[in-house]
Amino acid sequence: MKGIITYPPNGGAKFLDIDIYERNEIKLKTLYVGVCGTDKEIVLGKLPFARPEHGNTLILGHEALAVIEDPGESKIFKKGDVVVPMVRRPGKCKICSIGRWDYCEDGDFVEAGIRGKNGFMREEFYDEERYLVKVNQKDLDILVLTEPLKNVMKMVEIFRFLSGKLPWYCDDSTYTCKNLYVFGTGPEGLLVGSVFKHMGFNVIAVNRHPPTESVSKFLEINGVDYLDTSKEKISERIKKFPMDFAIDAVGSMEILYSIAKNIKNNGIVLLFGTSGQLLNGNKEFITEIVDKNLLVAGSTDGSKQNYVEAVQFIEENGMRLGFNVLISQVFKFDELESMDLVKFLTEKRKDEIKKVIKFI
Amino acid sequence: MKGIITYPPNGGAKFLDIDIYERNEIKLKTLYVGVCGTDKEIVLGKLPFARPEHGNTLILGHEALAVIEDPGESKIFKKGDVVVPMVRRPGKCKICSIGRWDYCEDGDFVEAGIRGKNGFMREEFYDEERYLVKVNQKDLDILVLTEPLKNVMKMVEIFRFLSGKLPWYCDDSTYTCKNLYVFGTGPEGLLVGSVFKHMGFNVIAVNRHPPTESVSKFLEINGVDYLDTSKEKISERIKKFPMDFAIDAVGSMEILYSIAKNIKNNGIVLLFGTSGQLLNGNKEFITEIVDKNLLVAGSTDGSKQNYVEAVQFIEENGMRLGFNVLISQVFKFDELESMDLVKFLTEKRKDEIKKVIKFI
Amino acid sequence: MKGIITYPPNGGAKFLDIDIYERNEIKLKTLYVGVCGTDKEIVLGKLPFARPEHGNTLILGHEALAVIEDPGESKIFKKGDVVVPMVRRPGKCKICSIGRWDYCEDGDFVEAGIRGKNGFMREEFYDEERYLVKVNQKDLDILVLTEPLKNVMKMVEIFRFLSGKLPWYCDDSTYTCKNLYVFGTGPEGLLVGSVFKHMGFNVIAVNRHPPTESVSKFLEINGVDYLDTSKEKISERIKKFPMDFAIDAVGSMEILYSIAKNIKNNGIVLLFGTSGQLLNGNKEFITEIVDKNLLVAGSTDGSKQNYVEAVQFIEENGMRLGFNVLISQVFKFDELESMDLVKFLTEKRKDEIKKVIKFI
Amino acid sequence: MKGIITYPPNGGAKFLDIDIYERNEIKLKTLYVGVCGTDKEIVLGKLPFARPEHGNTLILGHEALAVIEDPGESKIFKKGDVVVPMVRRPGKCKICSIGRWDYCEDGDFVEAGIRGKNGFMREEFYDEERYLVKVNQKDLDILVLTEPLKNVMKMVEIFRFLSGKLPWYCDDSTYTCKNLYVFGTGPEGLLVGSVFKHMGFNVIAVNRHPPTESVSKFLEINGVDYLDTSKEKISERIKKFPMDFAIDAVGSMEILYSIAKNIKNNGIVLLFGTSGQLLNGNKEFITEIVDKNLLVAGSTDGSKQNYVEAVQFIEENGMRLGFNVLISQVFKFDELESMDLVKFLTEKRKDEIKKVIKFI
Repeated sequence: MKGIITYPPNGGAKFLDIDIYERNEIKLKTLYVGVCGTDKEIVLGKLPFARPEHGNTLILGHEALAVIEDPGESKIFKKGDVVVPMVRRPGKCKICSIGRWDYCEDGDFVEAGIRGKNGFMREEFYDEERYLVKVNQKDLDILVLTEPLKNVMKMVEIFRFLSGKLPWYCDDSTYTCKNLYVFGTGPEGLLVGSVFKHMGFNVIAVNRHPPTESVSKFLEINGVDYLDTSKEKISERIKKFPMDFAIDAVGSMEILYSIAKNIKNNGIVLLFGTSGQLLNGNKEFITEIVDKNLLVAGSTDGSKQNYVEAVQFIEENGMRLGFNVLISQVFKFDELESMDLVKFLTEKRKDEIKKVIKFI
Repeated sequence: MKGIITYPPNGGAKFLDIDIYERNEIKLKTLYVGVCGTDKEIVLGKLPFARPEHGNTLILGHEALAVIEDPGESKIFKKGDVVVPMVRRPGKCKICSIGRWDYCEDGDFVEAGIRGKNGFMREEFYDEERYLVKVNQKDLDILVLTEPLKNVMKMVEIFRFLSGKLPWYCDDSTYTCKNLYVFGTGPEGLLVGSVFKHMGFNVIAVNRHPPTESVSKFLEINGVDYLDTSKEKISERIKKFPMDFAIDAVGSMEILYSIAKNIKNNGIVLLFGTSGQLLNGNKEFITEIVDKNLLVAGSTDGSKQNYVEAVQFIEENGMRLGFNVLISQVFKFDELESMDLVKFLTEKRKDEIKKVIKFI
Repeated sequence: MKGIITYPPNGGAKFLDIDIYERNEIKLKTLYVGVCGTDKEIVLGKLPFARPEHGNTLILGHEALAVIEDPGESKIFKKGDVVVPMVRRPGKCKICSIGRWDYCEDGDFVEAGIRGKNGFMREEFYDEERYLVKVNQKDLDILVLTEPLKNVMKMVEIFRFLSGKLPWYCDDSTYTCKNLYVFGTGPEGLLVGSVFKHMGFNVIAVNRHPPTESVSKFLEINGVDYLDTSKEKISERIKKFPMDFAIDAVGSMEILYSIAKNIKNNGIVLLFGTSGQLLNGNKEFITEIVDKNLLVAGSTDGSKQNYVEAVQFIEENGMRLGFNVLISQVFKFDELESMDLVKFLTEKRKDEIKKVIKFI
Repeated sequence: MKGIITYPPNGGAKFLDIDIYERNEIKLKTLYVGVCGTDKEIVLGKLPFARPEHGNTLILGHEALAVIEDPGESKIFKKGDVVVPMVRRPGKCKICSIGRWDYCEDGDFVEAGIRGKNGFMREEFYDEERYLVKVNQKDLDILVLTEPLKNVMKMVEIFRFLSGKLPWYCDDSTYTCKNLYVFGTGPEGLLVGSVFKHMGFNVIAVNRHPPTESVSKFLEINGVDYLDTSKEKISERIKKFPMDFAIDAVGSMEILYSIAKNIKNNGIVLLFGTSGQLLNGNKEFITEIVDKNLLVAGSTDGSKQNYVEAVQFIEENGMRLGFNVLISQVFKFDELESMDLVKFLTEKRKDEIKKVIKFI
């Protein structure tokens, strides 16, 4: 079986014949695997928590769509069913045991393709029933976006929880009067925009340069506005569209300072970008969090229910909302054998949003 | 009538004969007024949002205990009742109108002794029934701590809300296994320690120097531990007492970074200090908020219900829990006429926690 | 303009030329109006709170789909837009003022076609922007089901709130291990089944007779099971599928007793049927609510946000989930002139789920 | 060792020499045991779920205060510490494992003195550290009321949760405008009145006869009003004091119907009485739950945190709020040897609220 391996935490990427097989009952063939920023960081040796499953190697790939080849004893799945395999697998803590390993208390978990568990950039793998999320539409290749989208669904869940603190809706009960600023226009930021717009918010995607053509197209389909901070200051835009809610998909302190400064009292801030961009301190930052009674939540990963919600969202809205635009290019797995894999996994061509590997 | 005025936002402090009377129905005589860091900042001209009520002057004082001199038409109060007057008064926003002006949406409020409304450092004032919180124990002078304590009661309320996101209690339903680190050992930090220890947490007060004698005494009475970071690193202490929960009463970025680094997954962080201390950036900060699924909430002011809870806490626990230790010195109002008021309001003697002005 | 009026609270139904026009800015033409059990009760004079708008007459009809004929000054709507008009309109209480008039505190509201406001069984009406919910798919006639479905969306909202009391999900975070029993298989009960199945529950529709052919067909499309209590006792079925959650769409004490008896500890019970069926007392009823720590919530009406969610659900899932099966027959409005209207509005033909009037 | 045993589910009561010893590490001597309605039902053979620990006998008693005789290896307790032993002990379900066995999912628990575990009406017992709740005031005999009061603390917790659904507070954020009707004036009903009055509610205790002298005295101390429904209808009282909130400590359908009829929209109803009183059906009952959007919750038992809160409430408020009035008579354990035990445990003298057995 062929697969792409890396040597964490040092990185690198090789296309190899491998014969690592899990001992789980269900055999799957990989259909698609998406490539994302986390893969890039692993390959560049920049993700400190990346680690091998056995020895010093890790099979890459965590955004997958696969087909059941042999369901074993499973009563839920049959041959030919298409599924999304979960990335994170639970440890033994209390929160893991009750079903929310996305909130694992002690870090004692593994993540396929990232830390301690081989991923899906290979032709076949074995898995457990419990970690496979069934899809209904077998030929909908944009379902490869389920894994990144499940993170957004967790953010919806956190928003719902946090917004219960005060009556946090318009005076007609909807969110149409509420403005959400989404920082970052990579795949995750774009998915955030799509989902929260669908919930009724007025969404403004923010970046410090003009949108690429693909980004523009996606935002337009979704009815999301764009703010290019190289041309217009946030402090200007909020005069007309006050910032009630902010989601950061970047992870820069500069953005966090800007949010704290510009958001309204009782604002909600969700953070899920982790670029680690550095910035000098801002002495008003904490004062603003305090005086505005802000709520700030970090969010990583998602629960199986969040995967289920992501599958539903894609099946019901994905085509209409232009999710195909997010997949800039599809590469056949075999083609990769002769390519510069490190380059493939770490560089984006102009106007690329996300690339996907097709296995069958 | 004599009172102490300032000239915001420039500051200063004068002891003057003044004849500013509000036109509210209930006449009160001031009993005690506490002095706090906000007064210092106003007097030093460092609180940008301090503003006069009329002209260019503001009567100082927001931590008060007063006695009803003439209840007017009030059916709730009678002459001789002792009350705590609220600091913040509502504006016209939706959240103010439903009773939570501590969460005012648009900043359109006034705060007695701070912004836009004369405070209580004067012999008499008039007020509305609605903004007076009755106490039961007429001779309990530590009730002058109600105002700072109501901020802590709001934090309890926010903690209760945020901790509903996940099962956030020990496996016997209590909080005895949970460690709360409180940063800052000024009056507010000490009150936080007392209240959350009373809720069942193991509380560790943190500062970067040894505790003064008074602080030690108060913490000992309350069963709160101390961590002097000049002698022991937080990273050491958390090996034995993992940080589940953190409350910052300082407002320094350095502390916020330290919390993000040291706190456990799913940690809760409450911020209410606003010292505005500056620090160079920390590139792991946001990553930690995200990867740990942290919840961070700013909190300012408190609702009338929070005042009621603060009064109850002091009446029921204050003496036993050493709240008298927090009042380092009591000055008669008349004495102040001949003192250097700016110095009085802005400097603390060695080992002083809080000083209080006694009017009658 | 022609319309159907009744004389509440006495009832009756007449097809008349009427010239009652509201003075709102937006003019609409009615497309479809659904007929439901509430209409039947009004016409039979059995709904005590039915009342006229003016004089002694009320135009019937509250489940409508309409098209904008003249948008007036509206910036949101343009001619040709298709909308669902809201039934309930707010009074002046605190909860109405913040946008949740479905939770009106004092009963000071009107409901189109039911109490105090003329309904939509007429060729035209005028309305306010604020009470119109826009749809995207102009030719999707099953959107006439938005009004009944918005009640279900409110139930989802209440479920989400109540299920936050304890970790109320399976040990993989989904609801697939949770069994929901829905009592009643009229249109509302069937919609409940569809929506909660979509959320991931295993749903069992319960009635005391075999399902009609249409009901069977709808349930099958939706993957909802059926329990005919004339053939199998609930106490049998729960051995295999324990009752975790129950929703009653009937309103019979017998059902409520049965739920209390058969549901598991920590069960959630939502009530929205109001048939008022009588039954002798059951002395274990309260004991069961107490000893099982049950949560029971009544639910009526829905917010504008619930309408928005209902529109989305129908547009995204309605055809796939067989909502067309729920509309048993469509009658042209003009045909009704010559029919026995009381009979039309109060009797159902065999196997009828819901009938709809088509205006244009 | 002497103790009082019963033969569940048949009942009866005998004073015997017994030598049943648990094998837990901590040895305790019993100080006080309160007698309550549950004991009466067990002795009368009317509590269907009462069951022996071994053989056919059960030692009675679940409301206890005890002193550590030998702490064994415990690091928390030392000889002489006074504690309240918990009644319910966890089973193996998910909710038990995370610390909330008061919400046990599957009924697989035992309760000391009630079902499957010997109680505290004996001179000595052995127990585990985990189930003992320490008190601070060693000589405060009203702490024997901790066990019944912990049920009330759980109701406070449930109220806090349910009241988060909507802004459920007055327009000054307090509860002073909210009227709570408490049905039943036995010990539990009186404790409910005391605690919720302390939270700020206007509380009205309801019964169908005049209050006894002791009840009057307790209510007066606590500032709780009384409504004798033999003299004044609820429908009259609510004209002046609308029913926002109701707690039933009785368990009669008649009361439940009355609550549903008289409570305001969005009302909250907590049920914890289980008398099982029968009544003919009321066909408006469900309609009222639905149309008023009511929230109804049953509540039984309490968590260890609820015990801790109960201990604090008694220590901080019990004497001031007249909890001693609730203990009508104290009997020495030895005296009971010569008394008619069944009569003692099942009959109340005129004006008795609760009797207590003193062991040392």
